[in-house]
Amino acid sequence: MLGAEDTDKTPTMPQADRIPLARLIGPRSVAVVGASEDVGKFGGRVVHYLLGHGFPGRIFPINPNRRTIRGLPAYPSVAAAPEPADVAVLAVPAVSLLGQVEECAASGVGACIVITGKLADAGPAGAALQDQVLAAARAAGMRLLGPNCLGVFNVAASAMLSSSLALEAGPLRRGGIGMASQSGALMGTLVSLGHSHGAGFSRCVSVGNQADVELCDILEFLVEDPDTRVVTLYVEGLREPARFAPLLRRAREAGKPVLCVKAGRSAAGAQAARSHTASLAGSFEAFAAVCRDAGAALLDDPAAMVLAADALDRLPRLPRAGMGVAVVASSGGSTAATADMLPGAGLRLGAMSDGTRAVLRRFMPESHVHLPLDTGAFHDGVGEAGMRECVRAFMADPDIGAVLVPMTTQPAMAERAALLPPLCREGGRPLLYAMTAGEVGDAARRRMREADFPCFDRVSDALAVLRALEAEAAGRGRAGLPPPERPPGAGPLPPGLPSGALTEDEAKRLAAAYGIPVARGLSADGAEGAVSAARRIGFPVALKGVSRAVAHKSDFGLVRLNLDDAEAVRAAFADVAARLDAAAPGTGEGVLVQKMARGEAELILGARHEPGLGPMALVGAGGTLAELLADTALAPAPLRAEDAMAMLRGLRLWPVLDGARGRPALDAAAAADALVRLSWLAADLGERLVELDLNPLLLRAAGAGAVAVDARATLLPEATP
Amino acid sequence: MLGAEDTDKTPTMPQADRIPLARLIGPRSVAVVGASEDVGKFGGRVVHYLLGHGFPGRIFPINPNRRTIRGLPAYPSVAAAPEPADVAVLAVPAVSLLGQVEECAASGVGACIVITGKLADAGPAGAALQDQVLAAARAAGMRLLGPNCLGVFNVAASAMLSSSLALEAGPLRRGGIGMASQSGALMGTLVSLGHSHGAGFSRCVSVGNQADVELCDILEFLVEDPDTRVVTLYVEGLREPARFAPLLRRAREAGKPVLCVKAGRSAAGAQAARSHTASLAGSFEAFAAVCRDAGAALLDDPAAMVLAADALDRLPRLPRAGMGVAVVASSGGSTAATADMLPGAGLRLGAMSDGTRAVLRRFMPESHVHLPLDTGAFHDGVGEAGMRECVRAFMADPDIGAVLVPMTTQPAMAERAALLPPLCREGGRPLLYAMTAGEVGDAARRRMREADFPCFDRVSDALAVLRALEAEAAGRGRAGLPPPERPPGAGPLPPGLPSGALTEDEAKRLAAAYGIPVARGLSADGAEGAVSAARRIGFPVALKGVSRAVAHKSDFGLVRLNLDDAEAVRAAFADVAARLDAAAPGTGEGVLVQKMARGEAELILGARHEPGLGPMALVGAGGTLAELLADTALAPAPLRAEDAMAMLRGLRLWPVLDGARGRPALDAAAAADALVRLSWLAADLGERLVELDLNPLLLRAAGAGAVAVDARATLLPEATP
Repeated sequence: MLGAEDTDKTPTMPQADRIPLARLIGPRSVAVVGASEDVGKFGGRVVHYLLGHGFPGRIFPINPNRRTIRGLPAYPSVAAAPEPADVAVLAVPAVSLLGQVEECAASGVGACIVITGKLADAGPAGAALQDQVLAAARAAGMRLLGPNCLGVFNVAASAMLSSSLALEAGPLRRGGIGMASQSGALMGTLVSLGHSHGAGFSRCVSVGNQADVELCDILEFLVEDPDTRVVTLYVEGLREPARFAPLLRRAREAGKPVLCVKAGRSAAGAQAARSHTASLAGSFEAFAAVCRDAGAALLDDPAAMVLAADALDRLPRLPRAGMGVAVVASSGGSTAATADMLPGAGLRLGAMSDGTRAVLRRFMPESHVHLPLDTGAFHDGVGEAGMRECVRAFMADPDIGAVLVPMTTQPAMAERAALLPPLCREGGRPLLYAMTAGEVGDAARRRMREADFPCFDRVSDALAVLRALEAEAAGRGRAGLPPPERPPGAGPLPPGLPSGALTEDEAKRLAAAYGIPVARGLSADGAEGAVSAARRIGFPVALKGVSRAVAHKSDFGLVRLNLDDAEAVRAAFADVAARLDAAAPGTGEGVLVQKMARGEAELILGARHEPGLGPMALVGAGGTLAELLADTALAPAPLRAEDAMAMLRGLRLWPVLDGARGRPALDAAAAADALVRLSWLAADLGERLVELDLNPLLLRAAGAGAVAVDARATLLPEATP
Repeated sequence: MLGAEDTDKTPTMPQADRIPLARLIGPRSVAVVGASEDVGKFGGRVVHYLLGHGFPGRIFPINPNRRTIRGLPAYPSVAAAPEPADVAVLAVPAVSLLGQVEECAASGVGACIVITGKLADAGPAGAALQDQVLAAARAAGMRLLGPNCLGVFNVAASAMLSSSLALEAGPLRRGGIGMASQSGALMGTLVSLGHSHGAGFSRCVSVGNQADVELCDILEFLVEDPDTRVVTLYVEGLREPARFAPLLRRAREAGKPVLCVKAGRSAAGAQAARSHTASLAGSFEAFAAVCRDAGAALLDDPAAMVLAADALDRLPRLPRAGMGVAVVASSGGSTAATADMLPGAGLRLGAMSDGTRAVLRRFMPESHVHLPLDTGAFHDGVGEAGMRECVRAFMADPDIGAVLVPMTTQPAMAERAALLPPLCREGGRPLLYAMTAGEVGDAARRRMREADFPCFDRVSDALAVLRALEAEAAGRGRAGLPPPERPPGAGPLPPGLPSGALTEDEAKRLAAAYGIPVARGLSADGAEGAVSAARRIGFPVALKGVSRAVAHKSDFGLVRLNLDDAEAVRAAFADVAARLDAAAPGTGEGVLVQKMARGEAELILGARHEPGLGPMALVGAGGTLAELLADTALAPAPLRAEDAMAMLRGLRLWPVLDGARGRPALDAAAAADALVRLSWLAADLGERLVELDLNPLLLRAAGAGAVAVDARATLLPEATP
């Protein structure tokens, strides 16, 4: 029963937004629904923090039972306020949310920040309510942040639109760190942690359930925001994943590092994200591949993310990825323990140049001229000068990208620490200072704070940050690469593609159409047909039972290898045919006779379309090794030739391909070429590609090529226009 | 030119010690050589800290230029003090050290604590001086701690015999953590870090260059010390490694966990240890094997060690190794991110029992009844009761060993935190609380301090501690195992063993004498001899060129496999003989003809004698996989059968042995038996065994056994009695 009113509330097309996103984040006026004098209540804290952090705009406390709140005139409803606010902050019970949002919409409010939770995150009933709330907002062109969010910390504009207890910290320091987070509590915690370490923030936005404003909206805003120099993201699931990679690339072009923690690395983490903000985590590996390709640094620890963002904001950046670290400390024990921790963090000590060694030799005996550097070995009386000159030498060394100074208890800790910030700024490379003692190190910590310089409390924190800096430099190094080039003969797609589960031969024909070498074989109807096919091909041969219903033939005994003569082929045919009937009754499509191919190593090549994130190509150790090594690399398709080779080089299997320990080098170039061609096939298939595996791809000695001896694929039907 | 005096100074036998180690660590009187009013000087700080930390004994400041120091009568020399002190603390320039130690010795001082550095750690001249100092002390039966140490923090007895700035922290809290450290600065830093986290210490001793008192002396003291409940060690190199494992076992019997950080995990760390305290790091892997076997937890991060020691001192211990963790937080983002970090830390979530699930269901919708637990999903108003009952349920769950609560900014942080200590004590399992916000969490931190309960600042710290607790529980679980049993037919050693590099056949005979199945083959002098040997053995065969000078035959092309007929044998013989002449001129010992053996997987079995630590046995993935997987397990020999099987199960290769994905299971029992037998051979050979490798050991299907097809060994000549 639709009346005119109902129709008004759910238009098919949203109207133009009343305010741009920038005004939602930096409003001129704020209505606080449920405002209170009581800071134990959400609405009480919102007013408290707006005032306490110096909000420069107008505040309209909304409370039907009060004339004033904290000295401000209060209004019984949003409609009663003297003007429609740019933003209304709502922390009301879920039952009254829809009515309040409708009133805001009717009153001309620009946008709502909905702190109220237990909507889509609490199951189907909440999801339905969230849909109604969203529809009410959309109908009026009113933006909506949340629900289930903790609002906005607009530090640059002193606009704290949040009830987060993190704002108890007092005035937050302005700085270059922007944040978009699906978790409000995590955002508050990270801002609080960063604040305690002297970090400064620009604008931080928690998006909660992303009913309207979503993470990519905030990412885009931060990329364009002149106050933001480093972007941090806590992601549970992207609502519009296709926007993500292009925005990461824009951030890179703008010279803004993006650091990201993504829930769902583990199954339990993915489930937690679903429960928390009703987000589908998607494939973590594909997300990681997109981050790597587009230059974002993906971390696993939110605390490390904010500490690393601070380092990127306040310290020089690494000259490039892949350089070494100089560890310098006055405690021999600390130098040794720190050096031992580097490899586990994916880092290495720098290889000092002769020039650097010569500088060190001026201050210490030859026996101690090595990294890690123990300044306790300095000749007597050269302490400060030695520290200064050695760090200067490290900052100029061609293999040293960063200096790490874990300080232990020693005399004059604060004075020694104070030497470092100028050396770092002068040298133009990151210097990470860790005060590893407890409260006795507080004077040194304060000194670093006064110098506006980061100070870490743990060597482990500093190492996690160095690792993030390394990822940032690697991402930066990928800027400006030319677009991938299609190799000659890679496509086009043959007309009339099959769909569903393809047979081995269909999948191989598809691969062959992109110039990937495949061993195709001949189809044989009966035992004698198989024998004559084998004679035509030449012994030894392999026999394979074919069925669309069987993805992994060897699991059902449908593959027989190394058949040397007619008798063996006959016996194998009978066996395979019988197993085919048993394994997949009625779906058998005959038996394939194939020449036995030999290779020195087995790879798996794969491709798939990742919903939202696009086509992906994979390479890894094939055969038995595939399971043992869990040794794969995934990247967005299509690939550059250099990227394909880099993926191969990153495999644990690489030494085998490269000819380790006197073995001949294998044809890695042929494998890389096949991978590039497969990536173009994936790109051309687009959303139709569920998956395509070539496994194994047999790799021969260098120059002798590679050949895929088995293949499987699943395609969706072509979308009807 | 030896006079009577010189002879007196360097007796061949040390005299009886003047005081036991316990009095060095807890003296009744202390002479401070170089005492001063100036806390900028070492000797000034020693007096300052003795007084400031309430030393209950007598203090004799030694300074020829002062009548009093800080109100105490000062003496011009140790000899002038009213009585010989139990301990003299010396922080004097290296040039005057020997004279001062001689004076202490002559005056009847019980022991010297030598802070002075740049002795053996600074090269040969310093080492010679250190030897003289030691000789002077030994001649008088005077113990010597250091040099290059920072003395003793005897917290239990209020005796701070140290100049470490860590003592600026004010009164240290008494507790159960004992420490022995080769680095004084690291010890001070760790005590300071622990102190700031509320940890309590018993006695901490830095041993520096270990000229006399060494790390095992302090370990033994701490194992016997009634005030010490948890032992922490920072080790650069053991001076008497043979004492180490027995002391770790005594600690385990005494119910005292031992946590250890060992320098030298990396080559750079080993070099740093050598530079720092002139310590030879030895094989890290062997040290790790000894720790694992004797129940000590080996960590890589000193900060994590002290935080874990505090957890072991103040929290209940894990019921047993291998249980899961319950992650509980009020932030969905924090639960997801923390769950995602567990696998990387070697931990897993617990699998909740039905009973636990039933408890959770009382407080939250079914959709949220999972780990990690987001208490934000609790029904309204059940916050505290829900937290209490859920944690109680976790504490009783059969698969949950520990509860991890990472707290983010939320209302009533301190009150919520205060719920936890009683729940932990009542439940009897460790509960790790991390306050992950910055200063806004300080009230919660203080509340935990008041409750005498550990509080971590980072999830990463809590995970490192949980990992250490897991290692502690694993070590505890190995207590009371029966001694290894010698399998029938394992030995005895055959008489007249060869020495030096053994030939393949000699090494195989040695293995066969312990019941290890080997494929021995026949020696052939010429091509025709090889053909007739092959006919006797049966084709196909392998040919191997034998020389003591060649350890890795295949690197020199001295192995030819799969020879099917006489012609192939003749051709291979000529080739191998020629290569043997080229590779090792004049050392060739002929060509071996061996039946081609087949196996489904290749292992490497190895044994060696590790100086000081004893015989070791190793198993790992053999062949090509050996390099790729870096997949080995090492343990002290001889082995229990269960230990050998556990080593196999810990390999990444294990799924292949166990019959993964439809493949047949292999004869893991035969591999374990061969490994046990090899371990007895290693034990019997003792110090004569440089190394012995069986590689590959071919493993056949279950029940079909295993066979070593190649072997090499190097033995030292028998020691002349």
